[in-house]
Amino acid sequence: MTATATAATTSAHFTHLKCKECGAEYEPQAIHVCEYCFGPLEVRYDISQLANTVTRQTIEAGPHSIWRYRPFLPVTSDNPIDVGTGMTPLVKANRLARRLGLKNLYIKNDAVNMPTLSFKDRVVSVALTRARELGFTTVSCASTGNLANSTAAIAAHAGLDCCVFIPADLEAGKVLGTLIYAPTVMAVQGNYDQVNRLCSEVANTHGWGFVNINLRPYYSEGSKTLGYEVIEQLGWELPDHVVAPLASGSLYTKIYKGFREFVEVGLVEDKAVRFSGAQAEGCSPIAQAFRENRDFVTPVKPNTIAKSIAIGNPADGVYALDIARKTQGQIESVTDAEIVAGIKLLAETEGIFTETAGGTTIAVLEKLVAAGKIDPEEKTVVYITGNGLKTQEAIQGCIGEPLTIEPKLASFERALERSRTLERLEWEPVLV
Amino acid sequence: MTATATAATTSAHFTHLKCKECGAEYEPQAIHVCEYCFGPLEVRYDISQLANTVTRQTIEAGPHSIWRYRPFLPVTSDNPIDVGTGMTPLVKANRLARRLGLKNLYIKNDAVNMPTLSFKDRVVSVALTRARELGFTTVSCASTGNLANSTAAIAAHAGLDCCVFIPADLEAGKVLGTLIYAPTVMAVQGNYDQVNRLCSEVANTHGWGFVNINLRPYYSEGSKTLGYEVIEQLGWELPDHVVAPLASGSLYTKIYKGFREFVEVGLVEDKAVRFSGAQAEGCSPIAQAFRENRDFVTPVKPNTIAKSIAIGNPADGVYALDIARKTQGQIESVTDAEIVAGIKLLAETEGIFTETAGGTTIAVLEKLVAAGKIDPEEKTVVYITGNGLKTQEAIQGCIGEPLTIEPKLASFERALERSRTLERLEWEPVLV
Ligand SMILES: [Zn+2]
Ligand SMILES: [Zn+2]
Repeated sequence: MTATATAATTSAHFTHLKCKECGAEYEPQAIHVCEYCFGPLEVRYDISQLANTVTRQTIEAGPHSIWRYRPFLPVTSDNPIDVGTGMTPLVKANRLARRLGLKNLYIKNDAVNMPTLSFKDRVVSVALTRARELGFTTVSCASTGNLANSTAAIAAHAGLDCCVFIPADLEAGKVLGTLIYAPTVMAVQGNYDQVNRLCSEVANTHGWGFVNINLRPYYSEGSKTLGYEVIEQLGWELPDHVVAPLASGSLYTKIYKGFREFVEVGLVEDKAVRFSGAQAEGCSPIAQAFRENRDFVTPVKPNTIAKSIAIGNPADGVYALDIARKTQGQIESVTDAEIVAGIKLLAETEGIFTETAGGTTIAVLEKLVAAGKIDPEEKTVVYITGNGLKTQEAIQGCIGEPLTIEPKLASFERALERSRTLERLEWEPVLV
Repeated sequence: MTATATAATTSAHFTHLKCKECGAEYEPQAIHVCEYCFGPLEVRYDISQLANTVTRQTIEAGPHSIWRYRPFLPVTSDNPIDVGTGMTPLVKANRLARRLGLKNLYIKNDAVNMPTLSFKDRVVSVALTRARELGFTTVSCASTGNLANSTAAIAAHAGLDCCVFIPADLEAGKVLGTLIYAPTVMAVQGNYDQVNRLCSEVANTHGWGFVNINLRPYYSEGSKTLGYEVIEQLGWELPDHVVAPLASGSLYTKIYKGFREFVEVGLVEDKAVRFSGAQAEGCSPIAQAFRENRDFVTPVKPNTIAKSIAIGNPADGVYALDIARKTQGQIESVTDAEIVAGIKLLAETEGIFTETAGGTTIAVLEKLVAAGKIDPEEKTVVYITGNGLKTQEAIQGCIGEPLTIEPKLASFERALERSRTLERLEWEPVLV
């Protein structure tokens, strides 16, 4: 149950942790906050060594998972925990593009990521591999749902003890989708920010590996693979514009870091990429700061159906603001009704069923196009990060009903006629 | 809405349809039943042409989806509908193996198949590609749930009109996971066999492409990819033993056909493979016939939580019986309680959350091991065909509850102590 605090000597390419604020350097242990300035720590790599050893060919010859990018991930193990995570489809979204008036639209579909159907499987695969290397036998997390699913599932596969913390009011699918793996589940009567504060205290007292607290520097690096994969799947090219959801801001900033690293080591040609971010209006502290041209984020109390991105006090908010501004991107927010419409639009045009976070991102995409902030010719990649089967509550009552019929041809014909009449009526003016 | 009935001339390797009973041959159109004997029609290929053109290298150079096996699939199009379906993980299940006393166990995990998280995405990708080639603009199906999800999603992506038929009492996740793609959904007050009969009538009158009726010969070929992938993922080797669920019997017989084809064209060395099948006791017509040594299947009225495999009158039942017998396999059934235990066992040991069909297969695996019907040394592959998020009803009330706490360290410590005491009590004799 306790962690050894010794740094593993490594044949890997990561070298140390570095404070993002004051630049202080640390051994790669289970720490996440700078002792001097309380800034967040980030993993650093030997870039020239990477440039000398990694090529497009060495990557393409690797496994069909995030571990093809292992030199860029902070693990030393030859046997990382690989349950097929990553290399999700990059779908050319022609039908959605036509509907919106775009010409070059792609969906990066982590709604079908393995094993638990969200991008969190990436960060957890990295964090638990590193947790094992650092000697942890119990892993934990503060979660809005997807992270709990992923931590519990991958811990079960790896044979690690697991205790997860969630807000007590989560969607049923996310709770059940965690309990099934038989971890200890703590349902905290409070919002995510309260859960997170409690977990920071527990991390200090129990010697557990909290993937998004004391292991956060390693954990967050897993999101870079969403950048690497898009470059590789576009045929080793950068896109022109990226639209991603913003919760803590970590995903968004790490996609950016991933792009920059591939440019630095010479795997892809440099070019300007605009980074746009999506929030739900009921929890949009970063979008508010962007709109008001502030360089600080004022915490808010979340109130939205998009629970998986409802973080009122986002740890990486200021870094996300910085990236949006320096890349000429936008950070926009949408209402809960627009989120539901976004979920439906993506399902009807592309056959992809996403959760509320994905609905948020699609709705923001639509809003940015309508405002002329995305050029129709831009090669635009939209990140869909979770599956709709986990947030069924959000759309119940908004998606129509089956037509109930008897098992008889005549009953079917009547229902079909009725449905066609209804469809026609929707498109015709109603006479009063 | 209507189909052209002309056979496409083809650069593909499939040549015609052939009756499995009397051998009569047909052009590859939208027909599925022999005019002479009412036997089922099956797609035939030019095997020597396949042997001359396909190698392990040509396959490995293909896309990371079922379409890497395109020469073995009944489509002519250069642009099949590819939404990333197939190439799901083959997981070495060490923790489950240890629990059962096996040494060489693999899970083929189609619970994370794309886009709708069941093996049906394979058959639908093939069927809708063929439907488009044959000129259909409306596609349809008779479904126990997963097939409706898949047909609606892939039709949305491809821009085909869609009308699906389901039993009215399906699980909520399967109904909602169909409606979200905005097809017409007919909820039939009856069981699957009644739905299926109604659809046969509609197929005759409406000119729609029913993936599992008039397009069934093409559709069912998609399941062969579950055989091909396992061979490739085992390093171009056959396993010793296969355990798969039995609904209509089609999946099981097509895995067998896939294995045989790869042997015939010289892609893999021949060896004896035992084929075992799994049914739910509440709908086990094939297992009953196997037990009673009959070569015919007596239809039953389904009554089980495993709704996705609840087919009381299985179209390919007799072919499944034949394969089980000639390969020295077993066909076994398990109770609903054993199915729930199977779902939990797989989740807790391997981090894979499957639906009731998968629980059935795991429970049958357990039963066969306990009865000495699977040798610990055998390289055994278990097919998991669907995702647990779609059948949440089945396990509600059987998987424990979160521990509800206040956002305070003391509240957490009390809950943790309580949970540890409870855990200890489960393992200790209770003093009365
Ligand atoms: Zn610092
Ligand atoms: Zn015949």
